[in-house]
Amino acid sequence: MMEGIQKMQLFEDYEQAAKTLLTALFIREKYSRLAYHRFPRTTAKFLRSANNEIWSEEEEVLPGVSWSATVEGEDPYSMEDLPQNLNYSLKMKDGIIYVYDNEDTLKQDQPRSLPYPDLETFAIEMSHVLAMIADGPTKTYCHRRLNFLMSKFHLHEMLNEMAELKELKSVPHRDFYNVRKVDTHIHAAACMNQKHLLKFIKDTYKTEADRVVLEKGGKKFTLKQVFEDLKMDPYDLTVDSLDVHAGRQTFHRFDKFNSKYNPVGASELREIYIKSDNYINGEYFARLIKEVAHDLEESKYQHAEPRLSIYGRAPEEWDSLSKWFIKQKLYSPNMRWIIQVPRIYDIFRLKKIVPNFAKMLENIFLPLFQATVNPQKHKETYVFLKHVTGFDSVDDESKHSDQIFTYKSPKPEEWTMEENPPYTYYLFHMYANIIVLNNLRKERGLNTFQFRPHCGEAGSITHLVSAFLTADNISHGLNLKKSPVLQYLYYLAQVPIAMSPLSNNSLFLEYSKNPLREFLQKGLCVSLSTDDPLQFHYTKEALMEEYAIAAQLWKLSTCDVCEIARNSVLQSGLSHQEKKHFLGENYLQDGPEGNDIRRTNVAQIRMAYRHETLCNELSFLVDAVKSEAVAEKAS
Amino acid sequence: MMEGIQKMQLFEDYEQAAKTLLTALFIREKYSRLAYHRFPRTTAKFLRSANNEIWSEEEEVLPGVSWSATVEGEDPYSMEDLPQNLNYSLKMKDGIIYVYDNEDTLKQDQPRSLPYPDLETFAIEMSHVLAMIADGPTKTYCHRRLNFLMSKFHLHEMLNEMAELKELKSVPHRDFYNVRKVDTHIHAAACMNQKHLLKFIKDTYKTEADRVVLEKGGKKFTLKQVFEDLKMDPYDLTVDSLDVHAGRQTFHRFDKFNSKYNPVGASELREIYIKSDNYINGEYFARLIKEVAHDLEESKYQHAEPRLSIYGRAPEEWDSLSKWFIKQKLYSPNMRWIIQVPRIYDIFRLKKIVPNFAKMLENIFLPLFQATVNPQKHKETYVFLKHVTGFDSVDDESKHSDQIFTYKSPKPEEWTMEENPPYTYYLFHMYANIIVLNNLRKERGLNTFQFRPHCGEAGSITHLVSAFLTADNISHGLNLKKSPVLQYLYYLAQVPIAMSPLSNNSLFLEYSKNPLREFLQKGLCVSLSTDDPLQFHYTKEALMEEYAIAAQLWKLSTCDVCEIARNSVLQSGLSHQEKKHFLGENYLQDGPEGNDIRRTNVAQIRMAYRHETLCNELSFLVDAVKSEAVAEKAS
Repeated sequence: MMEGIQKMQLFEDYEQAAKTLLTALFIREKYSRLAYHRFPRTTAKFLRSANNEIWSEEEEVLPGVSWSATVEGEDPYSMEDLPQNLNYSLKMKDGIIYVYDNEDTLKQDQPRSLPYPDLETFAIEMSHVLAMIADGPTKTYCHRRLNFLMSKFHLHEMLNEMAELKELKSVPHRDFYNVRKVDTHIHAAACMNQKHLLKFIKDTYKTEADRVVLEKGGKKFTLKQVFEDLKMDPYDLTVDSLDVHAGRQTFHRFDKFNSKYNPVGASELREIYIKSDNYINGEYFARLIKEVAHDLEESKYQHAEPRLSIYGRAPEEWDSLSKWFIKQKLYSPNMRWIIQVPRIYDIFRLKKIVPNFAKMLENIFLPLFQATVNPQKHKETYVFLKHVTGFDSVDDESKHSDQIFTYKSPKPEEWTMEENPPYTYYLFHMYANIIVLNNLRKERGLNTFQFRPHCGEAGSITHLVSAFLTADNISHGLNLKKSPVLQYLYYLAQVPIAMSPLSNNSLFLEYSKNPLREFLQKGLCVSLSTDDPLQFHYTKEALMEEYAIAAQLWKLSTCDVCEIARNSVLQSGLSHQEKKHFLGENYLQDGPEGNDIRRTNVAQIRMAYRHETLCNELSFLVDAVKSEAVAEKAS
Repeated sequence: MMEGIQKMQLFEDYEQAAKTLLTALFIREKYSRLAYHRFPRTTAKFLRSANNEIWSEEEEVLPGVSWSATVEGEDPYSMEDLPQNLNYSLKMKDGIIYVYDNEDTLKQDQPRSLPYPDLETFAIEMSHVLAMIADGPTKTYCHRRLNFLMSKFHLHEMLNEMAELKELKSVPHRDFYNVRKVDTHIHAAACMNQKHLLKFIKDTYKTEADRVVLEKGGKKFTLKQVFEDLKMDPYDLTVDSLDVHAGRQTFHRFDKFNSKYNPVGASELREIYIKSDNYINGEYFARLIKEVAHDLEESKYQHAEPRLSIYGRAPEEWDSLSKWFIKQKLYSPNMRWIIQVPRIYDIFRLKKIVPNFAKMLENIFLPLFQATVNPQKHKETYVFLKHVTGFDSVDDESKHSDQIFTYKSPKPEEWTMEENPPYTYYLFHMYANIIVLNNLRKERGLNTFQFRPHCGEAGSITHLVSAFLTADNISHGLNLKKSPVLQYLYYLAQVPIAMSPLSNNSLFLEYSKNPLREFLQKGLCVSLSTDDPLQFHYTKEALMEEYAIAAQLWKLSTCDVCEIARNSVLQSGLSHQEKKHFLGENYLQDGPEGNDIRRTNVAQIRMAYRHETLCNELSFLVDAVKSEAVAEKAS
């Protein structure tokens, strides 16, 4: 009898767990839809069926499929035929840019009908998920499902390894080397390796020693003078003296790591060589990036999405960055651009650069709205934005924050204190502005942006909750190790995770303890990325080095690495057209039908396994909720 | 009282251990001297002092210092001005080639005075060392010393890491990228990576499809016909279908690994592309190797010592290989050549290709003696030998042998059974012939050869004992993990070990369990090598990939990797002149004086640490023996 009751209890627990998991998925779907982020079709179908609805293709949650940044042969910098000025008015309210049809509606405070999220709703939904990840029965349920996924994959491997290999062998002309791979997480300022930077510095010194490259305190310096002041002969410079490589000293020392961005520990060299806005108009930095782009184009099958910084110190940053991009002709078919925003309001506030957090947000986002509303007045920004595919929020996550995010947190305009807002507060406000912007751009038929923050590299587990709601995909995600519920949710929603085990190995987590392989086996959507070739990699081909080490160390099969490469294309900012070309015409479809093995080199057996497994997990949840509903009706 | 006796016992134990360790070192020194192998000066000095003698530079045990294979600008294939015929007579006896001044002394069996080792002495000395490695007190002693070496290095690291780094930073123009590195263990047939081989096959098919490349069963085949027979279009060929890469299937399956040498599992392609003696005179194989050599020359700082096979099936093998080398112009300043002899007598015997083991040895060694005695008659072999620097003995060491090596083992002429001789038997006979040959060549002022067998990759620990006596340096050495006595001896004698952790990872030992880092820390003379880029590596720079992975995974410092690179040059077959150029004028001297930091980028602090530590260990041994001698005299 007791046993019966216990079983009943257990069953109710599971029903409860299923219900809350589905709720979390509904929340993510809602936020994804608002932002034109990607939400997987399979999961969406099950969510519809839980509500006794039927999914249709029109509901596909996805960035625009008609948009393509640059058509071959077209001038990527063209400023001809720019769209008309819409004459909308713009105003920041509660840290979010509101769009008004004209000055009148602005005065009447009647904004255009765009989704303006509010902090209160977000905070409530966030607390839902937070409660859930701490709920005992839900934890048990997710833990068991994840264990099951692991064992199931091992079984799949034992049974089908040779069959998968056979499939791959029979694919003509396609192998791991010529499947498309995207370096989904790479900082532009560290996208060249140390040897490359060294050679570049030496080359410039050889040919342009007498060029004025720096202005400091009103004085101008030639390259020669800079090195004289540093008491260095560039000929003698080595990767050792350059000292940009992460070593044993950087482990758990993000602060030390950041100073590695200064070649020879000299901020002058960073200023001259890896800044876009300096005395030489960022020419050297641009040349370095173009050399990296050239190598990618040569390799043909490798792409990268370098991250450039916008700080929010001043509204002119966008103009300056865009002009640099266009003047230096940085477009490459193998590159897409991501904007990273460092979470350093506290520093700007301390230096009195901004009076409150809203100002920082305004500096970051207002120029984007202006360029979208009136392209002809903000030509460069408008053009540059065509090549930008996403936003990143970046900083050391392990830094402790004294502030806690609640629905009672001060509004950005009122955030005048010197403390930095917490991680979630940053994420919400970036996300909120991005969705308004995306919807506005969608109206104009322009490209939209993905939100792709650094998340779960270190620090609190709540970061991963915030990103589950707001991000299209995340970088790192190591801390998913620590929460079975979140890990299972990231699996169910197939939230892409760009992982950089070599970077982690130098900073936060030893290679052998990196969860990438485990995540891959369970079926999470992981990709491999380099993060900072300048600091971590040795060979000329950083992304290949990253794949090689993962493949060697974890004995990944060809099918495994090709699956990772496929994931990287899927989660990248490449256009719908490119994804069709690289993954197959029907890549949006579920399972094997969506996979063109001749392009991805991922076995159909693997695709079928992944699809069936995901369907199985989702149907458990839906069935539990439905049977509960039936039971309720019956009672 | 009891305690006193126990202490006395302990002390006597240690004296005994010290004595036997020194005896083993004396034995190795003797065998090294006979072979013109390298024996470290520091260890030699202490051995002299144990005998109350003083070491002098004339005793240096070393290959010839005056010899240089090719002077820049000289024709490496020149057959002009070859030395005169010495008219010596040659005859194999007990599996060893004996040299006679003329036919008369041959008849009288009065060979020239060269060191002809005998199996009995060797077997006795071998059993000495074998007994020693099983001796309890000696094991305890060595185990404790090795633990001490490890802790001492950790302490050194904690104290001096930053100081070492500072030293390196202050070295102008030299860093890890431009210190010389030698790939000390790489099989010529697998020296290109899989992508390279694939591209080469496609290229040849594109340009030479109608060329006859194969003769089989009296029929000639063009490249096109070969692929038609295989039902393959080379355009569709991929690294997957090529299937030469080691995967999870090869772990602990050396047999499966070997079949990976057959592209697409087709022995025809191996025959056409990676054989030196085929219908196209090994042209494709040569072109592949020359492309690898070209990359090394481009890199400037990387060298390799590819291993080519001589099987001992027939005496003509040398002539054929030498002609191939010269005709195809394989010389590269960045390559030296090693001859690998597979231990597969049993297969040849079974196929009745050789009647006994002596015949196989004769096929391998007689041509070398002939070319040395009468260069004008064996021009090609004579010229090729100038570029050969060593011999390797190679096969799966884990194969069980029914035969045991003793002084009663049948002589090679009597070894007519179908079973394969044991490992030690192979090693002794190869070594024996090499030392006679080396001494003969030394008389003529020619280059000598190093014996560099595969050893300790798997199988019995006795392999490492045989090599301790006979080898200049070894490849793999993993099993030193299992014997503290041997590990300590390899340390004291600084026997170089070429290690290939990526190869081991695919075949015998997971990367994280590889002892390389531990060996390095204790001070063993280890280098990094690739073994088979075709099977293991992913990027274009296999050796750099090997270093990058080791550096990343084990968090090696720049000083560590530069020390490994320095070791690789030291143990390589590069000439004395080249070593002076790459390591410093005085590289033969002990400690920091022998190190030119401007060339090696190894910190002098590190060099001093290594030298003091080795001296410390050796002086313990010598002091123990001396105090015993004093005690004996006194009693």
